This record gives sequence, structure tokens and C-alpha cells, in this order.
Amino acid sequence: MPFDRLETPCVLIDLDRVEANLARAQAYADANGLALRPHIKTHKLPRFAKRQIELGAVGITCQKLGEAEVMADAGITDIFLPYNIVGPAKLARLKALAGRIRLSVTADGAAVVDGLSRSFAAAAEPLSVLVECDTGMGRCGVQTPEEALALAETIAAAPGLVFGGLMTYPATGKVEAANAWLKAAVALLSARGLPPAIVSNGGTPDLWHAGEVSVATEHRPGTYIYLDRFQVEKGVGSFDDCALTVLTTVVSRPTADRAVVDAGSKALTSDTLGLDGFGRVVGYEDAVVKALSEEHGVIDLSACGETRPQVGDLLRIIPNHACVVSNLFDAVHLVRGDTVVETVPVAARGRVD
Amino acid sequence: MPFDRLETPCVLIDLDRVEANLARAQAYADANGLALRPHIKTHKLPRFAKRQIELGAVGITCQKLGEAEVMADAGITDIFLPYNIVGPAKLARLKALAGRIRLSVTADGAAVVDGLSRSFAAAAEPLSVLVECDTGMGRCGVQTPEEALALAETIAAAPGLVFGGLMTYPATGKVEAANAWLKAAVALLSARGLPPAIVSNGGTPDLWHAGEVSVATEHRPGTYIYLDRFQVEKGVGSFDDCALTVLTTVVSRPTADRAVVDAGSKALTSDTLGLDGFGRVVGYEDAVVKALSEEHGVIDLSACGETRPQVGDLLRIIPNHACVVSNLFDAVHLVRGDTVVETVPVAARGRVD
Repeated sequence: MPFDRLETPCVLIDLDRVEANLARAQAYADANGLALRPHIKTHKLPRFAKRQIELGAVGITCQKLGEAEVMADAGITDIFLPYNIVGPAKLARLKALAGRIRLSVTADGAAVVDGLSRSFAAAAEPLSVLVECDTGMGRCGVQTPEEALALAETIAAAPGLVFGGLMTYPATGKVEAANAWLKAAVALLSARGLPPAIVSNGGTPDLWHAGEVSVATEHRPGTYIYLDRFQVEKGVGSFDDCALTVLTTVVSRPTADRAVVDAGSKALTSDTLGLDGFGRVVGYEDAVVKALSEEHGVIDLSACGETRPQVGDLLRIIPNHACVVSNLFDAVHLVRGDTVVETVPVAARGRVD
Repeated sequence: MPFDRLETPCVLIDLDRVEANLARAQAYADANGLALRPHIKTHKLPRFAKRQIELGAVGITCQKLGEAEVMADAGITDIFLPYNIVGPAKLARLKALAGRIRLSVTADGAAVVDGLSRSFAAAAEPLSVLVECDTGMGRCGVQTPEEALALAETIAAAPGLVFGGLMTYPATGKVEAANAWLKAAVALLSARGLPPAIVSNGGTPDLWHAGEVSVATEHRPGTYIYLDRFQVEKGVGSFDDCALTVLTTVVSRPTADRAVVDAGSKALTSDTLGLDGFGRVVGYEDAVVKALSEEHGVIDLSACGETRPQVGDLLRIIPNHACVVSNLFDAVHLVRGDTVVETVPVAARGRVD
């Protein structure tokens, strides 16, 4: 089906670019002796999770239980959930999930470990718990290697749990700092008889520097499958590698320099990730997506040449952040070149808990 | 059901506050001789659309066809769709919808009018088309009263269409400018024999100044039903009037001054609307929701007193922008006080086209 038969706005996924992006990252991981454990938050599609594993990934990463449940239902058997699972309802779901697949989680404090241990003390198999380390991101995680050691010892002593290793989501562009932090922690833990079996590092922005984190054993990129405007800015790939675009219709040309499209923040999201504008218009590189309402995208054409989009024209926009776009659409269109080959539901969309 | 049985993050809607907010706006509209035509983008729930009409609204406003279809299916019979409907697929849906309910749309250019006319030329009933006016928002709309006149004449002459009036979504806080623009347009149109039957003005931010737009005949507020942090900043109501909160669990306390909750941009969205931070934490007014990842909200507690939230605690956050939060959740919990009375699907969520 050609694109002009689609209702807009909608999401197009270029299958050839997906395949190239997946293969490139797996080859890099293999060449650097790193296990690849892709984060499925970007695509939220069981078929791509399975393809990532076919190509050599050791398993997948999910950020929320709801995502992991969808992926387990679809047949994925090895999931890392790098999140503090807290509260009786979620711990019950976690235990049920652990009975079906190979599952591991993180913790960054004694209260979290205590909850996990109470839940798994009587389980048939112990739960693998990694210590989350804040190596500069300023989000979750123990703050020092010494705290990592103390929590690892707490986990190792807790009924129903085994210490699984260390995990971090590093600050973008701070590869050396993350490496230094993790090296110190690994040395401390090893000296105390708790050498971490897994040191899991993350992120697409520093994907091509993952090998420089010498103590890491695995990497968890997510966005690499689609890439986006932010990742291109970070040098991870080119716009020609970007596999996700939002197809949108020009609905208004109120002035010579302004176009309005039917993709607003409900299609592209308000994520700027520090960039100016809300996306890149394919074929109109000088156009600036300067403002979004929920259902309108306002494009400044003042820097464009004489050939400008007209009412009714279809445009493709590379969003700033692909992952959050996947979360807004019930379905996406898989394309090869200019043809839609299949439309698939985004199975793990909206799994926020 | 008490809140501690809910999975987080989730959305709570305070029914008493909803009712008070709806009644207050309807009373203001009545007192000022304005028809109220609420925008359902904020709640996306047929039950609240029906309640708005029960209280005196003349109909509802939807921004996209998909939303209007959901509302028509639920029994709403008068819908204004202030959007340029473009392209054969959408025009076919529009025509089908117009056969079921009382429907009106906008146009801001000849190309849009031409498409509508071709579609409705042979229809049993003509379609009412209002001219969208850009009175300062810088989005869609004709740029001058003279352009409004020319387009009104085009509509009036087009087979299958009738000229319905003028519509604007004004720039926030620019009531006088919008009024001057619309007054000039009404005078011009009236002098040419096309007095607009409807002059539709919009928005919650200037809701309590709607009566100052002297030529307006109706107002289309959306967010007033729930309010949010942005509207409170604009003086539309107080935090105690805010009906939508995101219930979230503290999952990490990595430092004395930092809490991390399980509501990130997939729950609160990245919308700042020019504000600092991403929401207001009820009961911790000095806490700053300073950063969001997709599944993490990072809260700075440094300005808070000694009593600080602990891991496992439930927090309620008033988001910057309520409408976009409604679009992220498959269902919301309706509450009275501290008790959930019903959980309802967000019927028009994700209707982006």
C-alpha cells in the first residue's frame, strides 16, 4: 500500500533500516566482547524483541513490569527489569512473572531489597538482583562504590535473593566517569568475595563507546533500533539511518513562511532533549518545527527555498525522541521503501505500571 | 477502594471538583450571554461530555475526527470540529459523520473549502463551515479580517456548504487583541451581507475574561474541567480546584535531597508550558519535579522540611498540563475524597487522526 492511502498522522517504520541498525550494534557488541541486552522501550514490539535475540542478544530489557509481562506473553524468556519493584501488588506480579521466565531486577536501597526478599523467600528459585549504581545520571542508584558493596552484601545475605552484579544508566557522554566508578566498585566487591558476574551498562548515545567501559559485560541500548534526531545530534548515526518517521499531512498554509501539519504533541511529543524544535522534516532540511499544540505542528519555512509544501502534501518527520512516539500510537506501519508491507499493534504501548 | 490498592502510576479524577469546575464555567457563560461548547480533549470521556451538555453546554468541541467519531458513537449529537479536514479519506469520514449528527467544521483557505465542497456538493444537508481566524496565536487561520471576508464569500458560494461564522483560538492573555480583530471582521462581514451567526472563541486560560470579547457568541474551554498547574499559574483556579492528579509511588531515595517516583514522561509528559519543573507534589509544595525520564520522575526535596517521602509512599502530582496526561492512560480512576468509586476507559484516548 502506498503512503497516500494512510490516515495521518501515523508512524512509519523502515524495516531495512531497522535490520541494518540491529546488525551494526550486534556486530559492535560481538567485536567488543559485550553481551547485548536491548531495551524494548523504543519499539515495544515482540517481533523486534525476537529479532534482536535471533541476531545474538542475550535477552531484553524492560523498564516496567507491564512491558515485561507483554514480552513474556509473546514468548521472550530472558528479561532484565532494571527498576526498583516496590509494594505488595507489584511484588506479587513480579513473583508470578519470575515463575515463567528467567528474570532479574535491580535495587538501590535496603528497603527495596527487603521487599524483594520477603516476596521471594519461599520461591522455588532465588531472584537475581543487581545493584543499581548512580555513576552520574542523578536518577536512581547507590551513590558510591562503598554503598554498592554494602547493598551487594545485603542482597547476598537476603533469603530468596542472589547478588547478580552491577547496573548503571550512565550520563550521556560521560563514559570515562562511568568506567572509573564501575572499576572501583568491581575492585571493592571482588576484594570482598563478591565479584559481580554481570556489569550492565546502558544507552544508545554512547553505544559506539561501550567498549571503552572496560569492566562492563553487557550493554543495554534501546533507541539504536530506530535512532532519532537526538541520536543523530550525538553522532550515533545519520538521518539516513533513522527508521521511525511520523507521516503527516499539511493542513494549513496560513502565510508564505508557515505550514501547519496534523502532527502535534500527541504524535511527536514535547520532548526536546535540549534541541531546538520538535523534529526534522525529511526533504525540507531548512524547515523548523517550531511549535506544537496537541494536534497541530507549526513549521517555519522562512529558511526554505521556493519549493514549499502545500495543503494536502504528505511530509515525514524524524522526531527528537523515537521511544516516546512509539508510546503514543496504537499501531505502526512497517514499510520497505515507499510501500507499507504490514500494520502491527504496538503491543507494549502504554504499559506504564 | 482506597488508593493504596491501585497500581501506580495512575490517574485520579476528583468527581466533586469536576462538578464544581463545570458548574462554575456554565454559570459564568450564562451570566455573560455566551454559549458554552466545551472541548473534550481534556477528559476524552463520553460521560463528562454528556454531563457538560446536561449542565447547559450547546454541544462539544473535538479537535480530530477520531475523537468526534467516539463521541458520536456515545450519543453526542452536536459537535464542532475546528480543524481543516483535508484529503479523500478524512473527507469521506467527515461526510459519514455529518450524516449522523449536527456537525460543523472550520477552514482557513480556499484549498480546504474546495475539498469540503467537492465532498458535500451532493449531500442531503449542507455542511456548516466557520472561518478560522489567526488573532495572534500564530497557528492556523486567515491573517486579516479582509481574508476572513474573502473566505466567507468563497464558502457561501460553494456548493454543499454554508458559511457558519468565525472561530479563533486566541493567544493566551491577549483578550483585547482578539476582540479587536474579531470586531473588525464582524463589521466587515456584516457590511457585506454575511453577518456571522456564530463567533466562537476559545480557551481556559482566558475563560474568566471570555465576556470581554464582546462579539463572541460562544466559548470553547477544555482544561477548565480538570485544571492543572499551568492554569493555576494563569489564575484560572487554585490547586484545590485541580481535579486530575497522577498517583505515583516513591521507588527510590538515593540521597537525602532526592526522591524518584514511578511517574515519568510516560505519565506526566514533557510539557512544561513555560513552567519550571513538571508538576506540583500535593502536600510537598516545596518539592520540585525537576527531571523526567520515561519511567522515572526525579524530585528535588532540598527545599522541603524534615518530613520527607520515603520509599513506598504514595504521592499525588498535579501535572503541568492535564489534557496530555489523559491521552497517556487507557483508563482513569474516578474518586470521591480518598476513595475510588469507579474506573473508566478513556474512550477517545489516542484518537490522533
